[in-house]
Parts: sequence; structure tokens; C-alpha cells
Amino acid sequence: MPTITAVTAHDVRFPTSLTADGSDAMNKDGDYSAAYVVIHTDDPAVKGYGFTFTIGRGNDLCVEASRQRGLPLVGLLVEESVADLGSVYRLLSSDSQLRWLGPEKGVEHLALAAVMNAMWDLAARVAGKPLWRLLADMTPEQLVDAADLKYLSDAITRDEAIAMLTELAPTRAARIAELDESGYPCYTTSAGWLGYSDEKLRRLLREAVDEGYRHVKLKVGANRGDDIRRLTIAREVIGDEARLMIDANQVWDVPVAIDWIGALARFNPHWVEEPTSPDDVLGHAAIRRAIAPIGVATGEHGMNRVLFKQLFQAEAIDFCQLDSARLGSVNEILAVYFMAAKFGIPVCPHAGGVGLCELVQHLSIFDYVAVSGSLENRVTEYVDHLHEHFVEPCIVENGGYVLPTQPGYSAQMYESSVEKYSFPNGSYWVSVA
Amino acid sequence: MPTITAVTAHDVRFPTSLTADGSDAMNKDGDYSAAYVVIHTDDPAVKGYGFTFTIGRGNDLCVEASRQRGLPLVGLLVEESVADLGSVYRLLSSDSQLRWLGPEKGVEHLALAAVMNAMWDLAARVAGKPLWRLLADMTPEQLVDAADLKYLSDAITRDEAIAMLTELAPTRAARIAELDESGYPCYTTSAGWLGYSDEKLRRLLREAVDEGYRHVKLKVGANRGDDIRRLTIAREVIGDEARLMIDANQVWDVPVAIDWIGALARFNPHWVEEPTSPDDVLGHAAIRRAIAPIGVATGEHGMNRVLFKQLFQAEAIDFCQLDSARLGSVNEILAVYFMAAKFGIPVCPHAGGVGLCELVQHLSIFDYVAVSGSLENRVTEYVDHLHEHFVEPCIVENGGYVLPTQPGYSAQMYESSVEKYSFPNGSYWVSVA
Repeated sequence: MPTITAVTAHDVRFPTSLTADGSDAMNKDGDYSAAYVVIHTDDPAVKGYGFTFTIGRGNDLCVEASRQRGLPLVGLLVEESVADLGSVYRLLSSDSQLRWLGPEKGVEHLALAAVMNAMWDLAARVAGKPLWRLLADMTPEQLVDAADLKYLSDAITRDEAIAMLTELAPTRAARIAELDESGYPCYTTSAGWLGYSDEKLRRLLREAVDEGYRHVKLKVGANRGDDIRRLTIAREVIGDEARLMIDANQVWDVPVAIDWIGALARFNPHWVEEPTSPDDVLGHAAIRRAIAPIGVATGEHGMNRVLFKQLFQAEAIDFCQLDSARLGSVNEILAVYFMAAKFGIPVCPHAGGVGLCELVQHLSIFDYVAVSGSLENRVTEYVDHLHEHFVEPCIVENGGYVLPTQPGYSAQMYESSVEKYSFPNGSYWVSVA
Repeated sequence: MPTITAVTAHDVRFPTSLTADGSDAMNKDGDYSAAYVVIHTDDPAVKGYGFTFTIGRGNDLCVEASRQRGLPLVGLLVEESVADLGSVYRLLSSDSQLRWLGPEKGVEHLALAAVMNAMWDLAARVAGKPLWRLLADMTPEQLVDAADLKYLSDAITRDEAIAMLTELAPTRAARIAELDESGYPCYTTSAGWLGYSDEKLRRLLREAVDEGYRHVKLKVGANRGDDIRRLTIAREVIGDEARLMIDANQVWDVPVAIDWIGALARFNPHWVEEPTSPDDVLGHAAIRRAIAPIGVATGEHGMNRVLFKQLFQAEAIDFCQLDSARLGSVNEILAVYFMAAKFGIPVCPHAGGVGLCELVQHLSIFDYVAVSGSLENRVTEYVDHLHEHFVEPCIVENGGYVLPTQPGYSAQMYESSVEKYSFPNGSYWVSVA
């Protein structure tokens, strides 16, 4: 029975700013980065891998915070820990001194996500299952016990969550079989970064259509004239039927958002993403009322389950874009999925970055199988960057995520990638220094 | 004309957990700590001092984040910088890679507070004025230019803020004279920490009454029977007329809060503080509706101005307890004061910890002089801990803060204190290791 012997954390940064991959109105020069965590045991064959995602500077803080967050894991028995990840989560998240630094937000919460993502990866590997199946094989009670329901009882109770999950439990297998055929539907952001030329935009949109995507997303919000020109190109290439999403990455105040989106309404956007501060529940609700029937989407910077609770309560969003590396791993994500199902809001997770696609495929599949039981208005982000660094990269075919089959949360990077892109002493960063 | 040459940051921790000072239902063993920042210039006589406040572990992260946050300051001319602190704030806060780690919350935002607090201290020293007077001598336009109004235009516009400040400008001097006589009213939390025995509680409450306090605060929320016993003692000592505040430090879900506060209503609490998650705007609004006329107070964990905007918009609080070391220094605090005045909510800043009393006295005085023009329902926290480490400690007489007279933001610690309590290599921590 192996024991956890160490938790190591690594500062891995990829120079994506060189090619404007990931550029948008708020984030012009991100270097996609991971605070990458490895949980070691006294059995060299038993390890867990996880990470949180950042865009460069400050990734070192997440690395150090992850190292500290992981300390209470050392000495725990693997078998006992993976059997009760709710308790492990509470052990880590209840450190009141670290809690002060959020609470439940910012660097400390990103670090909790990194460490608990690695614990869930470890649990799935020990079980010999991909994470989505580990979750789909848990009973309603086990799932609810793993979830963090603190501060949520005015929106959903433990009994309500169990009842919802129990209703869908008998038909889980049928939905797994369905996804095994079709994959989980996704959309692409790869074409629409703000720093790309019109020619590159047109070429990538054409490729996306040819690859079977029926949803594409463009970045907007820096310049209104540019937005109109780029959206005109997009509609020329994808036609009027395909869904076109736009993403402002938080650049607008509420009145500006309403006005600017009005000027883009003729392009019939399916949703507008991050129209204002991610913290502004009431602002999103006001924008949603003003721009209907255009949908409002947010969540990649949604700091914790209490924010999502309010987004649901205030009827502020049409699409919930939770982030797999910003929320406190599966424990907190489960709670958001439960609330979304109760409030009838589709979850379309944020992805892209480094490895987020690898993680969210598991979450979306699990959601359909066990929580929402619906694919209506659900589509998960896919961005074609940096998958080559992962040992078991996600696979997308015909606009859908193919069900992962390997044990774990698909979070393991190649050691050679970790070494080459370690900041500042990996061979890549030494070579450009 | 001096130039900024370096920004240093220091991990200073005081062993307050040994005596249960600061203990409450959420935070049982905090070691009051500061990420303490010094801005150095090429003139040894020209320095700025500031900090953010934490309760122990993770303070090192705030120190490193402050060091990084301060890098863009190096090379700036002091005279130009202090003349336009709005631009300096935007220079630091607009780093999009660091923004990803919040945005505007958690460790990175605490570090922004620490560095900008030191810049405001520097500005006041250069001007030869205490900070409150530096602010009180600024024109309405200068104050609004220094404030961070991003994301707030649906609640307050620049023109509205200027009009409010302009209306009060002619009478600023009269209010300064008034406070010079009476001090700014404060209340004490020193008696009511959860870890204190009944005997110590009774003795400290008696001392508070004897010292002229008409408001005292007790920690609650760990055990309902204990709360009733301790509140009974409190009313015995302070009588029925003095105001009694209670503070739950976020331990309750919304329905539990409503039920528990109901059980304590017979002690006639003036306010209940932090009844639930600090992020839960709608939860606070629901609690407020349920427990009226008991007031709801929150804000010490209020992460940024967007949260406070919503607390005001949702009519969620009766008292705004902004924190001088958690919000992005005076720049963001000004915006919260402007909104509070517009919405008619009294600001009663959070204090205590290390040095927070030293900071908030300046803010409260400025608020009365230039923004709210009112003392009604306003009372600023005072806790009698750790003032001996400050070169110009705050002075409280007859339940009121005496107006500071020395130049600066009262943020400078004695070098001997910084050295002794530096973690982990200061002489105190070496001696107990």
C-alpha cells in the first residue's frame, strides 16, 4: 500500500506570446504556463499529475503556493486518500492562515486546484480508469460527499443533489454508449485570436469549417471597427447557419458592453463571453437583460462556487464556462455542475491554454453521463495549441472530443517538455536569455 | 530630484497565536503578519513604507509578489510619480500576466495594496503632510483622477463623484477643526476574541467601558451556547445602552446565519459582521432582509471595488468595512468611498491586525472631511495590539482616534522590529525554532 512521499511543483512556461496565440483585448502577450504538480509515492509506478494554468509572470508564485499546499499530503496512504477525496480537499482547504490570502480565490486557490487536480489524477490512475469514468462509476452519495457544498445551501441542498443524480443513474450507461459513438461536441477558438491577420483569420476559419466545426469564436473588444470587419469575414466564411461566438475578455464597463454588443448584434452572435468584470454578477445580469436574445457567457475567471451560485441565482448568464484549473478541482467543480443542472444552465467549460482541453473533456463527458443528461446548447471549447507536450493528449474528430481511454485526468506532461520549458533554467529559456 | 532605486519587501510575522489574540470562529491561530514594503530612492532621507496584512503562512508569497509588483517603479522620478499616483497605480495594475492570477483579488491584489500603500506613504512624506491631509488638500478632480473607477460607471460616474466632492469642498476646514477637538470615533475588538476566558472577557470589557468606549465587539459563531453566555456577560458589563457588535467571521451558510442570529437577537446587536462568505452579495442581501433591524456589516475580505459596488447595488449591507491592505490602496479605496457616499452607506473600516489601525485612521478622517461629511453611524475599529512596532503609532483617547500629525501614512515600522520578527531568520523566530 503506497504512501505519498513528496509533492513537487514545476514552473513550466511556453513562449506563446511570440506568435500572438491566445491574444485578446485584455491579454495581448500571454506566455501560456502551468504550475505543474507531481505527487510522488514510495512506489515509482504510482504518481499523480496536475496543474493550474497561468499566462506567464507570477507562475512562480503558483508553483511555490502549490508546494506549500501539498505539504499536508506527505505521509498519507494512497488507498485511503483516493477513497475519500472530499476529506483530502477539506484538509488542504481548511488551512485558515492560507485561507486569509483569498479566501478561496487568487494564487492560493489556483494552487489548491493544481494539487487537487493531481490527487484526482492519482485516484483515477490507481483505479485504472479515465477520470470521467471514475466519476461516472461513483454513487450519487459518493459524488455529493466529494463535492464542496459549503455556502451553497440556499441554492442547493445535499438531498436535492443526491435526488438529481439518482434520477439519472440508471441511464448512465446509455449516454456513455452514445458519446462513444459521437464524441462530446466542441467548438474552436483557434481561428479567432485578436493578434491574427485577416488572412490568417480567414484561412483558419475555412479550416475549422472543413474540419466539421459548427461553432467558432472570435475575440472582440479592442476596436469596434476591427470587430465589425473581422465578424464580416467570419460570417462570409462560416455562413449564416453556423454559430458564431464573441469574447470580450472583460474589457468593458456595463454600459459600454451593452452599447458595443448592440453594434455587433447584426452578426447574430450566439453568445458574448466575459463582457465585463468576472466578479460582477449584477452587471452580467443587467447586460443579459439588455442584449437578449444574444446569450451571456462567463466563468473562466469565475473564482469559486459562491460566485457561480450568484450568477445562477441572479439569472445573469446563459452559459456557464467553469474553469478546470481555477476552481478548486473536481470537488468544487462538482458543486457548480449540481447547481447548473438545478438552475437549468448549460455548462460549456473554458479550455485552451495549456492542458485545459485535456482536463475539461473528462468534465463534460461526466456532466452528460451523470448530472445534466443533456447536450442541448452544450459545446466545449477546443484550442489546438500545445497538446504535443501531453502524454495522452485529447483527440478531437469531426468537431467532438473522443472519449479518453487511458487511466487518469490526462494531465501528465512529457518530462522532456517539463525540462525544456522550465522557467528560467530549462533549455528553451536558457537559449533565448 | 530623487529617483526610485529599489523596492524591498520583508516577511514580518508576530507570534500572536500564542496568546489567542485575534482568535475567532474561522481563524483560531493566526500569527499577525505583514508583507512590509520599503521604497528606496537615491536620497537616503526619502523613503516610502507600506504593507499588506496576513495571518501567517503564505506571507512569503505576498512578499515575493510585492517584490515583483514593485519592479516597474524602479527608475521613476519621485516628484513626477507622487504627482500622479493614478498613473502609477494603472502602471502596476495593468500587467496582464499578473492580472490573470486574480484578477484583482488574492495574493497579487494584496501585493498591489502593499506597494501602492508605500507609494502613498512616500507621497505624503514628500509633501510633508499626514496622508489624511494630503488627500484633504487635493481638489475633487485630483481625487477622482487618482481613483480606480473601472467597471463602476453603472454605479457612479466621474462627473457624479466630482460633483459630490465639490459640494463638500468649501466646508472641509470646519470638519478638520471639529475632529481636531474630538478625534474620530472608534470601537474596540480587543475584549472579544473567541479564545479568551470569561474572566478575561469581563475584565477587558470593563476596561473598555472605563476608557470611554460606547461600542464593543464580540466574536461569535463557533458554539451557540457559548455565544449566549458571552453576550450575557457583555450586556452585564456594558449595559443596555452601549452598542454591542457581533462578528461571525464567515462561518455560516445563509440559512444558518439567519437562524443563529435570530437566537442572539435578544442581546440587541448593533450589527452582525461577516455572517457568511465575503463573496456572497446576494446572500448578504437575503440575511439583511431576514434579520432587520439588526444591521449587516462586511468588507474586511471584500476583494475589490466591484464586490463593493454590488453590495451597495443589492442593498446587502448597512455598514461597509473596507480593508486598507486588501483593496488596491487609496486608489481603489477612494472609489469605494465615493460609491458608499452616493448609496448612503456608512464606511466603518476594518482594522486591528498589524498596523491596520495606523492606516485606517487616515481614511476615516479623510472620509468625514471630504467625502461623506457625516459621522452618523460611523465608528472605526480599534484593536490594542502591536502598535509598539510602529514609529508613529496611532493614538486613541476617549474612544476616538487623535488626528495624526506626522508626514506619511503612519506605516513605518521600527527597523529593530522588522529584524527581530523577520521570518524565518529574525532573532525571535530563530530563538523559538
